[in-house]
This record gives sequence, structure tokens and C-alpha cells, in this order.
Amino acid sequence: MSLIVQKYGGTSVANIKKIRTVAERVIELHKAGNQMVIVLSAMAGQTDMLTDMAKAIIEDPEPRELDVLLSTGEQVSVALFAMLIKSMGYDACSLLGFQAEIHTSHLYGKARILDINNNRILDELRKNRIVAVAGFQGIDEYGDITTLGRGGSDTTAVALAASLKADICEIFTDVDGVFTTDPNICKKARKLSEISYDEMLEMSSMGAKVLEIRSVEFAKKFNVPIHVRSTFTEEKGTMVVEETQDMEKVMVAGVAYNKNEARVTIKKVPDHPGVASQIFEPILEAKIIVDMIVQNTSEDGFTDMTFTVAKSDFNATMDVLQDVADRIGAAKILGDKDIAKVSIIGVGMRSHAGIARKMFHVLAGENINILMISTSEIKVSCVIEEKYTELAVRELHKAFELNDEKGTKK
Amino acid sequence: MSLIVQKYGGTSVANIKKIRTVAERVIELHKAGNQMVIVLSAMAGQTDMLTDMAKAIIEDPEPRELDVLLSTGEQVSVALFAMLIKSMGYDACSLLGFQAEIHTSHLYGKARILDINNNRILDELRKNRIVAVAGFQGIDEYGDITTLGRGGSDTTAVALAASLKADICEIFTDVDGVFTTDPNICKKARKLSEISYDEMLEMSSMGAKVLEIRSVEFAKKFNVPIHVRSTFTEEKGTMVVEETQDMEKVMVAGVAYNKNEARVTIKKVPDHPGVASQIFEPILEAKIIVDMIVQNTSEDGFTDMTFTVAKSDFNATMDVLQDVADRIGAAKILGDKDIAKVSIIGVGMRSHAGIARKMFHVLAGENINILMISTSEIKVSCVIEEKYTELAVRELHKAFELNDEKGTKK
Repeated sequence: MSLIVQKYGGTSVANIKKIRTVAERVIELHKAGNQMVIVLSAMAGQTDMLTDMAKAIIEDPEPRELDVLLSTGEQVSVALFAMLIKSMGYDACSLLGFQAEIHTSHLYGKARILDINNNRILDELRKNRIVAVAGFQGIDEYGDITTLGRGGSDTTAVALAASLKADICEIFTDVDGVFTTDPNICKKARKLSEISYDEMLEMSSMGAKVLEIRSVEFAKKFNVPIHVRSTFTEEKGTMVVEETQDMEKVMVAGVAYNKNEARVTIKKVPDHPGVASQIFEPILEAKIIVDMIVQNTSEDGFTDMTFTVAKSDFNATMDVLQDVADRIGAAKILGDKDIAKVSIIGVGMRSHAGIARKMFHVLAGENINILMISTSEIKVSCVIEEKYTELAVRELHKAFELNDEKGTKK
Repeated sequence: MSLIVQKYGGTSVANIKKIRTVAERVIELHKAGNQMVIVLSAMAGQTDMLTDMAKAIIEDPEPRELDVLLSTGEQVSVALFAMLIKSMGYDACSLLGFQAEIHTSHLYGKARILDINNNRILDELRKNRIVAVAGFQGIDEYGDITTLGRGGSDTTAVALAASLKADICEIFTDVDGVFTTDPNICKKARKLSEISYDEMLEMSSMGAKVLEIRSVEFAKKFNVPIHVRSTFTEEKGTMVVEETQDMEKVMVAGVAYNKNEARVTIKKVPDHPGVASQIFEPILEAKIIVDMIVQNTSEDGFTDMTFTVAKSDFNATMDVLQDVADRIGAAKILGDKDIAKVSIIGVGMRSHAGIARKMFHVLAGENINILMISTSEIKVSCVIEEKYTELAVRELHKAFELNDEKGTKK
């Protein structure tokens, strides 16, 4: 007998028929003697519809009330799901954030889970009930409803799995698992049977949308094994687990890309101690998140500083930087929105030499100019011109032997 | 400065534009220095839509989960309302049943309010906030969501007004107030400026749908003055208040009717002690509610027993009675669904003689046969053939001087 936490996303519960399919799957596992805790998202489209209602009032709705509004989406899902289970002759119980006692920080719209009191859930499980918990929502210290941000139901599921010491946390989604790269731009992308938490974190932060990044952080922290799989097949998906020795045998686990960044360069900065903080303090104050930072070697007491920000923050960044440049006496500001970041990711890099060099070689072979480079222990990222993204991804995927040449899944 | 509780029904918050109208009205009163507690229903059509979703699963959905589902309707209303108030530059805060601590019995779908802990509401009022409370919902001793049944938001408002010792409880609806009779069948119906709790209770139980009957019971118990008025005008509506001496000067306050009952007669019942309970025990066991009961004078040791039940319970009643008749040796069962109950109501009856006789006289004058009679201290009801309902109502309305002859409102 296992304690299984499963999370079903919006497309998996888009209508009564689909919720019934989910219910049937859950009942099978319940009948086999497992304790089932099911986390549900809002029915597909529901969150957008509610957001539109709020935006019809004001572009920037009051965050506390927006959370009260949005949390109804998951409430509808768990109520319908529990009703369905009961109508099929099994016992079930829905629990909202405040009932499941998912305590979060006070930050409406992107609250963090601080603590879960799992007594009520354990009580319901002891009564042999299937427990349906509303994803995405919690409660703060004042008893007010909070939401965890887009993808927050993943985090709810992993946090519950950690709290309940579940044997497995299964994240059901509309894709088959985690792929070596985006199958939309590389037909030979291969489903991974296994990936480490750290690799998954890098993949998520690179824009692979399979798992919400905070859920992976949670899983890593509490060592919760995650199984990412499709709602629409019985096939196994991808296990996200602690790093194993086997994983290191593979040099590169995946190729990721991100087109949502822009590059900014501040030219001829007088190079003296403290100049970096003079540049970045005002940017952080403007709540702009900086990703890659590259500083060139100093020449005649001057240096160039280049960094990337989200495309949506590009204009704000240019405004802030103009002030900064005037103050510190930099020569000028350059900006470029037509860039992309391409990354290779793999814990194998730790034990394989020459991986970065091979990446540069592959890009050079396609005449793709590298604009910026950044490396971490398990990742190499290159910023290139946006138009080369797909080409770069496909060539790297092939060069690092990720291609599914046989057309079979690993 | 007053503490004002206002309740707005579904048609008053049917869309963002209407909610804005409500918000403007509330802000005006807030600006004038009043403390405002606003109880909202679900947007018109929302509760039906949610009920349909549940019925798509099963005809008789699990009551606990149905309440979880239905309570989202009011949650959406209060969130949108509080957002709107904030967007207009005033402070507001929505509270759900569990946050406003509206403690109810455990009876899903028709829970009763047991107790309200008003600390949170008073806190928010002290912060100079407009407080929007979700109507229709509460929380039971297990922390589970309950709903109060159709019209439950009226009860929420009156119970909050009682708990907060509000100066007034205003119930906004789509009619102008309480009328002397149904304006749809009597064009000369007149809006009452005042009605006593007891009269209102009789009017409600007679099918006048302006106020939910439990809210009137609550108001009477805690002496909460209710002002029933239209959302769509500034005009005064009807005050529902404790009986005053003035009220007794009027013989009849209103004429009500009810077409939703059916009549059942059990003929030639052996008349001995205990026979009534032999008849009614099995009916009550079948959860059938009996309204009027009339027993004829005994003749040769036999009597006839006639009573009314809801039309929807007619078939079940006939089934139960057949068994009973066989057991107690009654001659036969008669049933009639084409009846209506017409009532005149007024606290003035206590001090005026001959009111019932006048009613019989009016009906006789129109050749309307009276099938059953029942009287209380402030009401006389006659069961007649259904087809005469409108005629009877109009003639009684005229005879008891309720007609609005000048076309002006009282």
C-alpha cells in the first residue's frame, strides 16, 4: 500500500467527461489499496475567464481580491471531482486551501508555502476517503486566501507529497514527460525516462514548461520523487529524482532555449571598484530581474558590461540605465531584443571535460555568432541571434547524441 | 453615523455594470460617515449554472460537495465588488463564510445560522473598510462549507445585522417593496410603507417571495428593522418592523395566495381517539409537510379528514394514505390538485370583529365556493377552486380597501 499524491492540470479536468476519466484512474489505484490525495487545477480556461472579469474592472486588480476570485476555479474542480467519485460509489472529500491548512506567506498572487498541517488530510485518508485538494491556493496568517501563481498546483502537489511523506508525486499533464528538447522545434526530441532535480531546475528556468520551478525546488529540498506523465495515456513518463551515478554517464541531458530575454550593454564604463553595484542597484530597485551578466576585460581603465533581462523589462531597463550612464560617465547604452539563449544541461558535465568547447564548435560550424557565454556546474548557455535559435537547438541536440534516431522512446 | 447592513440579490449584481451601480450607492453612504457591511448573492444565473454542472454528474449530488461548488458563486461576487470599491479609491475587504465566522448547523444545503463571531468584521470596519460578506454560506463545526438554501443571503444579512446590532438592514431586490398583493394579478396593488414581522411571516409563507421566511423569523427574534427596497430606484420601500399601534388601525394589510398546494380527503374515518395520529404519523415519516387540516363534525361515529400538502408531494401522499385507509378502515381517499389558498393577513384582525365573515361574504358574492377554512390570530385562509384565484384576490383586495384608487403609492 502506497500513499500517492497526483496532480491533474487544467486540460485534464477541462470538462465533466475528462474529470470522469481522472476519477476512474484514481478509483483503480484506490481499489488496489493505495491512499490517494488528488490535487486539481481549475478547469482549462477558467482562470483566464476569471482574470478577464477582474480586468474588466481595472487593469491591475487588488491582489487580495483577485486571489479570492481566482481560487474559485480550483474550488469548482475539487467539488465536481469529489461528487463524481461519490456518484461512482466510493467515498471522497474535497478540501480547500484553508481546510487542508496550506499555510503560505502573505504575498497575494505569488505566495510561498510555509507549512502544511496535514491532520485533516490524514483524518480523511483514515476514513478510507479519496481526498481532493484544491491546488494553487493557501491561507495566510490572517486567514485570508492566497494563490501561489501560475503553475502553483504543481507546488501544492509536491508540498503535500513532502508533508505526507508520500511514496510518489505524480504530475499529470498534456505532454508525455520531460523531453531532451522542445519537440516543436526538434522532431528527434526524445522523452527522458529520468532526470535529476538540478537538471530539471535548469530546464525549467530555461523555459521548459513541464513543471513549475518552485515545485522542483520543493521536491529537491524534501527529496520527493516526481513522476511527470500524460493524463491521456498509461505510458510511463519522466521520473524527476535525486541524482544517480547513472545520470553522470550521459554528458548532456537536454537542450533548452529561451527567447524571452533581451540584451543590454553599457559601453566604456570607468573600471573601478564599486562600479558594478552602481549599475545594478538602481536596476534591482526597479524590480527588474537580471539574468546573465558578462564583464569584458578592462582596457585603458574602461570596461563594457553586458547583461540580459526579460523582454518585458527591456524598456524600463533602458530608462534606468540612461540615468546610471550619465552619473558614472559611461560612453553609451546599447540594447538588443532579437536574441535567444540556448543552453545545454546535464549533471554529466561535472565529470566530462570539453563540453563547452564542443558546444562552441557546433555553433561555429553553423556560422552562428556567440554574443554572450555563461556557465554553471551543470549548464552552458550561449546568447545568439534569435533567428538562429531553432538551427542551434537541432544541431546541439544531434551533436550531443540526443537524437531519437530509431524513433523509439528511451 | 450608523452601522448599515445591505443585501443585494443576484439581479442587482448580474454584471460588472450593475455591481458598479451598487458600489457607487455604497460609497455614497460610506462617505456620509456610515459603517457599511454588504451582503451579496451570486450573480444572476450563476447558482443555476453551477447546479446544472452538478446535475450533469448525478441527479442528486453529494450535498457537502454541492455546497462547496455553489458557494463559489457568492465568492466571485464579493471579490469583484471589493475590487471595484478599491478601484474607485475606497478601502474594502471581502469575507467568505469561514472568514466572517458564520457558524451554522451541519445540514448541507439548508444549514441554519447558529452563531456569528463578528470580530473580524468589526476589525475591518475599524480600519474604515467597506466589508463585503458572501451571502448564503457559512461554516459548520468541522470547518466545512455549508449553504443556507435558496434566499439564504437574506438570512445572512439579517443575522449579521442582529449580531452587529446594526441600525438598519436594507434588503435590495428587483421589486419596490412589499405589496398589498401580487401586482401581477391585481393592478391596484399598493406598496406598503410598513408591515409587522408577523404579517410578513404570513405573507412569506403564503408565497410572497420578497423575503426569505427564515430571515423574517431572525429579524423578529432580534428585533432587526428591515427595509425592503429596489436596487434600481432611490425610492423608499417597505419597512418590516415590530408591530405598532398604528398598524392595528388597518384591518387587513395584504391579500396573499398560494397555488402550490393540493387537497386530500380521507372519507368516513372511524372516529375514535388516536385516529388523527394514525393518519398523520406515516405522512410525516414520509417527510411530507401538511399545511391546513380540517376535521368535520363526527356523524354516526365516522368523520372526514381533509388537509393540504405541496402539489409536488401529492402523489406520495396519495400512496401513503391508501395504506393508512386500509388499516384504519376508512371508506375512501379523494384528491384534488386544482385548488388555491387565498388569505387575508393583518394584525388589525385582533381588534376588529367580523373580518372572516366579510371575507366569506365577498367570496360568496362572486359565487366562489369555499372548500376549506383555516384561521389564525392575524390571518384567514380559504381554499377555493384554483380557477377563481385571481378573481378572489382582486375582490378581496377591493373589499378590504387596499386598492390604490388614486394611483399614488401610500
